[in-house]
Amino acid sequence: MPMNIAVAGSEELISENLLELLQEKQFPVGKLFLLTALDAEDQDSIRFNNQTIYVQDLASFDWSQAELVFLVGNTDEYVAAFSAAEQNGCKIIDLRNIEHKSSLHGLSLLAQKEDLESSVHVCPDDLTVLIAHVIQPFFDETAITQLNIVALEPVSVHGKKGTEALARETAHLMNGRPLENTLFSSQLAFNILPVLGDSHLVSELQLLFPEEKLNTSVTLLQAPVFFGTTVVADIVLEDALPKEDITRILSSISNVTLSDEVLTPVTHGSNQNKVYLQLIAGELDELQTFRLLMIADPLRCGRIQNAVSLAEQLVTPVMS
Amino acid sequence: MPMNIAVAGSEELISENLLELLQEKQFPVGKLFLLTALDAEDQDSIRFNNQTIYVQDLASFDWSQAELVFLVGNTDEYVAAFSAAEQNGCKIIDLRNIEHKSSLHGLSLLAQKEDLESSVHVCPDDLTVLIAHVIQPFFDETAITQLNIVALEPVSVHGKKGTEALARETAHLMNGRPLENTLFSSQLAFNILPVLGDSHLVSELQLLFPEEKLNTSVTLLQAPVFFGTTVVADIVLEDALPKEDITRILSSISNVTLSDEVLTPVTHGSNQNKVYLQLIAGELDELQTFRLLMIADPLRCGRIQNAVSLAEQLVTPVMS
Repeated sequence: MPMNIAVAGSEELISENLLELLQEKQFPVGKLFLLTALDAEDQDSIRFNNQTIYVQDLASFDWSQAELVFLVGNTDEYVAAFSAAEQNGCKIIDLRNIEHKSSLHGLSLLAQKEDLESSVHVCPDDLTVLIAHVIQPFFDETAITQLNIVALEPVSVHGKKGTEALARETAHLMNGRPLENTLFSSQLAFNILPVLGDSHLVSELQLLFPEEKLNTSVTLLQAPVFFGTTVVADIVLEDALPKEDITRILSSISNVTLSDEVLTPVTHGSNQNKVYLQLIAGELDELQTFRLLMIADPLRCGRIQNAVSLAEQLVTPVMS
Repeated sequence: MPMNIAVAGSEELISENLLELLQEKQFPVGKLFLLTALDAEDQDSIRFNNQTIYVQDLASFDWSQAELVFLVGNTDEYVAAFSAAEQNGCKIIDLRNIEHKSSLHGLSLLAQKEDLESSVHVCPDDLTVLIAHVIQPFFDETAITQLNIVALEPVSVHGKKGTEALARETAHLMNGRPLENTLFSSQLAFNILPVLGDSHLVSELQLLFPEEKLNTSVTLLQAPVFFGTTVVADIVLEDALPKEDITRILSSISNVTLSDEVLTPVTHGSNQNKVYLQLIAGELDELQTFRLLMIADPLRCGRIQNAVSLAEQLVTPVMS
């Protein structure tokens, strides 16, 4: 049964990816409303399922027209929209950046088969979705006692202003002009910047896996890369598992491809709906610790993938 | 007592850094000979200790003039030079890339107080020197059972052809021109490339610490960065140590600065003789596992630092 859907925050880069994924998955969209807190007339219309959709003004929207709202916008106006949508009985999938999210609702991860009756589903951060999706099946076999993450983020996690800032910095340096820094804390072109305050992966994983004593360390680095996240994850299991079991588990995760190719952000992390994974382990038959190299496009494999999968369950609830 | 010194391979980028470091440390150089297997007349002369030194032809060099040879060049001609220098009784410090090194000699790391009578000292790879230098003092306290390394290398590890290749790739992409790849296996500009065959850190650490059962995993990534290596190292100790001991050990390592600043390759890994380090650990008073973030200029803090320190011991043997 088609659903009437609103996307609140059409100015965000990930709105584009969200709409592409809804089309690719042939999600049963009835009416589609694109809402913005910016000047709606300045926004481009988009083509969706062979229709032209014009962007509308968020403030004057009649929320009773929508059944499901993807909340993407990251300004105060969208906080008000959240309340209005909730009061009008809309289901809400909250995709906002972590600092704009409501703390009143728990996190929703697709594969956790959580309560679909809830009207609000808060998506974890992109990196949390990537990591949680891959480690989750291991908890069926044994505990994970230690998880050490090094993640290299592309500038696309900052939206269009991120990609523009890296291009501008690079052009300035190549032309010997001084940097005019607007977005990053320090020169990012030809550099690697540590991202401070990177502990929300730790807290989100705790919220998602409250039963597990998951000891996690995270180092987030901002790389001078446009698209594609590179993650190196060291996983320590409570009990060793046969290597073939680990390979089988990793191969069976949806949207994940275990690959022997040379993985890079440009080749496997741009415009890809899949997470590419490599298992790096020694010669032993049983592994207690192993390393994963992951490459993914966070704009496609992070919260959007999670949000669309959640929406699919809302349309066609899975028989439990 | 001054020593007559030859640098065999003056065309290599690290020869420049080697000579700078010898001057900075006021190493007692008698006569200095710069040798190349390329056309000596094409090479620039350099200023060293207020003298102009001309580059000489390697093949016609009279090795009896040199007491100590820094062997830097990475072509077959330098293999012959090695034999000639050895036959003439020169002390040799071998700084060649790993694929050009003689396997007949063990590795020399300064702090290991090895046999200074030996005529040949083979320097480990830059990354090995960086890591070994930092982990070594921990072995006095307890064993290290696991060492997990993620290292992001700059293009300067490939010498001038590396920095030129990244600049060229970046310029081509910024101008919308197709890439002409000459050096890297795939586009490096705005990308991260896994470095294949990165296991020599593991084997070199085994040679340096033969008594230790050091379980090491290494992921080497090539970053689109000109100078400065970023290393994230997870260290698991056999016995937990008080956090203050770990801080004290790290602070006491020569040429290492424990810093609270934001560390990046551009700010702390370019033209720096020091390794910058951050301890990343939880709130516990005792640590069995901890993470280090290291930034260093491999051209200055790697094998060159090690080589010059070795040379200093050869000039003034340390009383044991």
